[in-house]
Amino acid sequence: MNFSSKLIEDAVDSFSSLPGIGKKTALRLVLHLMGQSPQITEQFAETLVRMRRNIKECRQCHNISDAQVCNICNDTHRQDKVLCVVESIRDIMAIEDTGQYKGRYHVLGGVISPIEGIGPSDLNINSLIERIKGGEIKEIIMAISPTIEGDTTIFYVSKQLQEFEVSISTIARGVSFGGELEYADELTLGRSIVTRVPYKNTQDNS
Amino acid sequence: MNFSSKLIEDAVDSFSSLPGIGKKTALRLVLHLMGQSPQITEQFAETLVRMRRNIKECRQCHNISDAQVCNICNDTHRQDKVLCVVESIRDIMAIEDTGQYKGRYHVLGGVISPIEGIGPSDLNINSLIERIKGGEIKEIIMAISPTIEGDTTIFYVSKQLQEFEVSISTIARGVSFGGELEYADELTLGRSIVTRVPYKNTQDNS
Repeated sequence: MNFSSKLIEDAVDSFSSLPGIGKKTALRLVLHLMGQSPQITEQFAETLVRMRRNIKECRQCHNISDAQVCNICNDTHRQDKVLCVVESIRDIMAIEDTGQYKGRYHVLGGVISPIEGIGPSDLNINSLIERIKGGEIKEIIMAISPTIEGDTTIFYVSKQLQEFEVSISTIARGVSFGGELEYADELTLGRSIVTRVPYKNTQDNS
Repeated sequence: MNFSSKLIEDAVDSFSSLPGIGKKTALRLVLHLMGQSPQITEQFAETLVRMRRNIKECRQCHNISDAQVCNICNDTHRQDKVLCVVESIRDIMAIEDTGQYKGRYHVLGGVISPIEGIGPSDLNINSLIERIKGGEIKEIIMAISPTIEGDTTIFYVSKQLQEFEVSISTIARGVSFGGELEYADELTLGRSIVTRVPYKNTQDNS
C-alpha cells in the first residue's frame, strides 16, 4: 500500500502487528481515529498504557488483577474446597460466563508441550502444590483442553498431587449440547460412546 | 463478558469502540498486549498519539500529510494539468496503488447527501474552484462513487466549473475486468450495454 505519510504508515504498522489485523483493517482503524478528535486517540492510548502498567498477576491464582490478589480469590462467597485448574485467563472468563462454578481457580499459564519447549517448570505447578499443601482444597477440577498436550498436563499434575488427599476430576467430554450427532467429529463421537454414562432423568426430580 | 479487572474492562471497551472490533476480538488484542513487554504497549500508544497530533491536512489538496503540503502536491514529476477529484484519502491510496495516474488530486471529503445532511458547503468545493482559477489545470477527472449521491456531486461540481476552460471526465463504469458477465449486477450490465464503446484493438499497435 502506498502511504503519503510516514506517521500514517507507522500507525498502520502498529495496528497490523496485533493478531488478526491486516494492513487494510489497520488503515481503516487509523482513518477512523483520524476522523475523530485527538482526545479520543489520547484516551485510547492512555487506557492501554495504564492497563499494561498497572495490571498485576494475582499472587494466589495467577489470574490478572488490579491488586495483589484478584477479585475471585478475594470473594468470600466462593467455596474454598474446590479448585478449578485452567490453562489461561481466558478460560476463567469463559467458565465465569457459564455461571455454573462457584469455587476458586488456578491458572497454569499453558500446557506441557515438548514441541513448543514448554516443560512443567514453565507452568504454575509449584504454586498449585503449595496451595494444596494448605489442606483446605478437597477437589481439583482439571478444566484443560482435550488435546494430547492437555492430557499430558493432566497426567503430570495428577501424579504430582497423588500424595495429597484431594479428588481430581476432569470436565466432561462428549458431544456438544444442541449439536447434531452427524456433525460431531469421529473422535468425539467415538469416545462419547465408549465413555457413555448411566441414564438419569434430570427432568424428574422425584 | 465477565472481567475480573476494571483495567482490562476499560482496555477492551477502548478497542471495541473501533469499527469492526467486537468484545471478543478486543479481549484477544488486550491479552496479546498483556503477553508482551510493557514497552510494546507504550510504543503502540505513543505511535498513535504522535500520528493523531502531528498529522496535517494538505492545504492544497486536503490529503493527509506530515507537512503543510503533501508528498503528492510536492512531487515535481507529476503532471499539473490533470486533477483527479476524489471523495476521501482512501481513494487516493487506491488510485496510487494502480500506478496508472500521474496527475494531482483534490479530496472533496465526501459527497453531497441531503439524507445525511451533507451539503456542498461541507465539501472542499470552494478550494477546488480556487485551484482551477489558477489556470494551470486543463482536465478534471471525477473519480467519485457511482451512486446517486456521487452523481449528484459530479453534477453539482461540473455546474460550478462550467465557466472555466477545463474538460471534465468521469472514470469509466461497466463490468469489472476478469469478472464473468452472468455475475455482474443488472444495473451495471444494463448500463454497460447502453454506454457501449466502439471497438478498438488495443493489442494491435499498427
